[in-house]
Amino acid sequence: MQVSALPVLDRKIPVYEILGEESLERIHQASLDILEQIGIEFRDAEATRMWRDAGAEVDRFRVRIPGDLLMALIAKNPERFTVRARNPERSTEIGGNKVAFAPTYGSPFVYDFNNERRYATLADLQKFHQLAYLAPVLHNTGAVTCEPVDVAIPKRHLHITYSAIKHSDKPFMGPVTAPERAADAVRMAQLVFGDDALDAGPVMISLVNCNSPLVWDETMLGALKVYARANQAVIVAPFVLAGANTPASAVGAVAQLNAEALAGIAFAQLCRPGCPMIYGHFLAAVSMKSGAPMAGTPELAFMNFMIGQLARKYRLPLRSSGMLAGAKRVDAQAAYESIQNMWGAFLSGANYILHSAGWNEAGLGASFAKFVLDCEQVEMFYRLGQGPQFDDMADALATVREIGPGGHYLGTEHTQAHFQTAFFMPTLLDNNSFEQWQLDGAKDANARALEAARRMLESYEPPPLDPAIDEALLAFIREREAVLPDGLE
Amino acid sequence: MQVSALPVLDRKIPVYEILGEESLERIHQASLDILEQIGIEFRDAEATRMWRDAGAEVDRFRVRIPGDLLMALIAKNPERFTVRARNPERSTEIGGNKVAFAPTYGSPFVYDFNNERRYATLADLQKFHQLAYLAPVLHNTGAVTCEPVDVAIPKRHLHITYSAIKHSDKPFMGPVTAPERAADAVRMAQLVFGDDALDAGPVMISLVNCNSPLVWDETMLGALKVYARANQAVIVAPFVLAGANTPASAVGAVAQLNAEALAGIAFAQLCRPGCPMIYGHFLAAVSMKSGAPMAGTPELAFMNFMIGQLARKYRLPLRSSGMLAGAKRVDAQAAYESIQNMWGAFLSGANYILHSAGWNEAGLGASFAKFVLDCEQVEMFYRLGQGPQFDDMADALATVREIGPGGHYLGTEHTQAHFQTAFFMPTLLDNNSFEQWQLDGAKDANARALEAARRMLESYEPPPLDPAIDEALLAFIREREAVLPDGLE
Repeated sequence: MQVSALPVLDRKIPVYEILGEESLERIHQASLDILEQIGIEFRDAEATRMWRDAGAEVDRFRVRIPGDLLMALIAKNPERFTVRARNPERSTEIGGNKVAFAPTYGSPFVYDFNNERRYATLADLQKFHQLAYLAPVLHNTGAVTCEPVDVAIPKRHLHITYSAIKHSDKPFMGPVTAPERAADAVRMAQLVFGDDALDAGPVMISLVNCNSPLVWDETMLGALKVYARANQAVIVAPFVLAGANTPASAVGAVAQLNAEALAGIAFAQLCRPGCPMIYGHFLAAVSMKSGAPMAGTPELAFMNFMIGQLARKYRLPLRSSGMLAGAKRVDAQAAYESIQNMWGAFLSGANYILHSAGWNEAGLGASFAKFVLDCEQVEMFYRLGQGPQFDDMADALATVREIGPGGHYLGTEHTQAHFQTAFFMPTLLDNNSFEQWQLDGAKDANARALEAARRMLESYEPPPLDPAIDEALLAFIREREAVLPDGLE
Repeated sequence: MQVSALPVLDRKIPVYEILGEESLERIHQASLDILEQIGIEFRDAEATRMWRDAGAEVDRFRVRIPGDLLMALIAKNPERFTVRARNPERSTEIGGNKVAFAPTYGSPFVYDFNNERRYATLADLQKFHQLAYLAPVLHNTGAVTCEPVDVAIPKRHLHITYSAIKHSDKPFMGPVTAPERAADAVRMAQLVFGDDALDAGPVMISLVNCNSPLVWDETMLGALKVYARANQAVIVAPFVLAGANTPASAVGAVAQLNAEALAGIAFAQLCRPGCPMIYGHFLAAVSMKSGAPMAGTPELAFMNFMIGQLARKYRLPLRSSGMLAGAKRVDAQAAYESIQNMWGAFLSGANYILHSAGWNEAGLGASFAKFVLDCEQVEMFYRLGQGPQFDDMADALATVREIGPGGHYLGTEHTQAHFQTAFFMPTLLDNNSFEQWQLDGAKDANARALEAARRMLESYEPPPLDPAIDEALLAFIREREAVLPDGLE
């Protein structure tokens, strides 16, 4: 079976610049002041030693980083790099004007094919990896799209990583829940790409979150050290619940998260100068009434735009989040929030847009229906990013002359030649008449999407994987499982 | 009852410029070439006479307009103006950085409070006018939000206009289905504002559509002449079904519609130099497979952006369309399409965004649920347009210092002082936990919105209207109804 895939988007349209130079500089300076004067905690003894050796002021876990040192470390981070895939055609450029889209990540629940919300399983995860492989606009298979709760936690990362490798040939993401688990993923990647391949450049993108405000904890630093030293890409992402773990100010929140991200990336450069880190963030606004996180609100768009300008100032690749929603159904709310959120992320100039498909219920539920609906919407953003086409303008205008007042264009040669590419045509959105829609079963978007996802999975054939590599991966998993406990100690 | 209302948005964030100067100039020049060389039809004998007198080349209905003449007429159009409301606090500035939002327009069907789709009635229309009055973010009551099919067509405009005046105190829109009906609306407005008031400036915004490609028909020109001569604002709008009545090219479609809009506005300036016209458009892309119109697709965003740049070049106020959707339910499709479409419209710099609330089924169905859901989304765009706030930045940063690493902000003085304004909190979107949502009845967005709309209508009290004016309007309607037929001749 031929699987279609869109290359990483080469964005031709401008980013959206919301700040003037002076306001941008004020936020940048505020972040430097935070790191110099307040400092940030690195709750890891090796990390604080490394910071002291580098010239920072260290007081137990509190690290105060001089601005010059910070910016010198940031300058070591590559502006762009390529993440290799096991299918070379699926290798992914990150940075510059490139935009890669990746699926949702980390949901304990699924919204399944029976429209039930239940705990996720490894079988669900495998389906999500298959869908990510089949979705032309996704550039990464992801990792823990949903949590396979039927696998023991200490062994879970092995099966997640194996599934991502086995069911797709796109780049994937690595586990971060413990340094040893990150090391297992590095070893599995070496089995796929060769022992020395990783040193030459990344084959994985992993995700570490800052414990905002201003704390990098031992677990995240442990995973970050493993991946940075193995030259593997990591998204260094403050986890912002704006108003709860940041000031109740979009500008203040950005100043804080910028300090957190820069400190994390600078630390990675202490681990291995030149390692490929991505400026990351997760943004939610917190309802000051209920404490609930909210997506797609206007301040999150501001924050996306401001962070985009900061990342470009630092020449760092940027990750944002796409189709976030807090709905408990794949209903109008889910879509309102998702598209509101994606426009902010997309026009911010983000290079890696995580959570581009399937996210619902504030990340607690991964939906198969929303996964495929979101993918079609992301294809529209992809098309948007390609910009308007001027190459057939003269022909188009000649057609205006040919048709003249009161005519119509459907039969013209120009229309025949261009109708398939001129205007994007969604297939999961029903634009037929009400009567036709009724004849087709009067299905809402969720119902049509579940049918589409089921058809995709029925058509799925795994991408070829060298049987020797497959066996080596399975042998490694057996070997590790023999020594890993079944429960948490 | 105190009704809250947001003033017309004074947009503080930048518009989105997708074209460089050279590409913009190419489209502008193509539009001038179309009007000079191909020409455009004005199917109205008085109009062609006026064009000939002005110096255009006229061949029966075909009018070829020299570029100099066209641009000289366009220059007479005001760059901005105010539409007076019967409540002076609701008067609406149009143009410049101002953005006004108006409800949907023209649907024969409603999606009602029982989730049924049925033909609309005058009672439905009155409810929509009441909701428009109550919605803080809507700056216009609209007119034929839905078609009151229970009123005879020749008399319908009288009841539509009366309802808009009676049930709200915001500016409203006038009928365009015949010149005499436009004249009736002008007379009714004079009864409200005084006999000479309209001459001083607009109290109504009406909407005429071009019969694309390149035809202004007699009905639309008839209404346009009445309103232009009465100094009333008109949206001069090519009705684009891109690919069917334009070339299969976003750029080519814009060149054509730009010619159509400019010709219409220029003609209005022949009717009354300096009359307040708005550069308008309605954009849908046509499915080349089914012929169905589609909203929210990426090329429509391009087209919005390009048209915005053209309107600014000509210093013309701009109208776009907001929450367009082709769904047959208020489901995820309706919301995906609506927000996709609104971002294009909003960042284009449009000054008057029609169809900002309630539109569904490609305009055939007006939904009460979608009306209130859309209004909340539009409030988010309003907030977006206000831009990020820097005025409390120093206080916010002082709070970062106060809290330090690992703290949390909910209890701080800064948070207490700013929590109500720092982050927009939607009320129709449910961001509670799954369990709380279940306890609240497991309602989807459509169900919650219907409840909200019902509550709004229960709270409705009509804005005061001088009984003498009310009686004069009713007397005028009686007088006109005595001579108008009940059916079409």
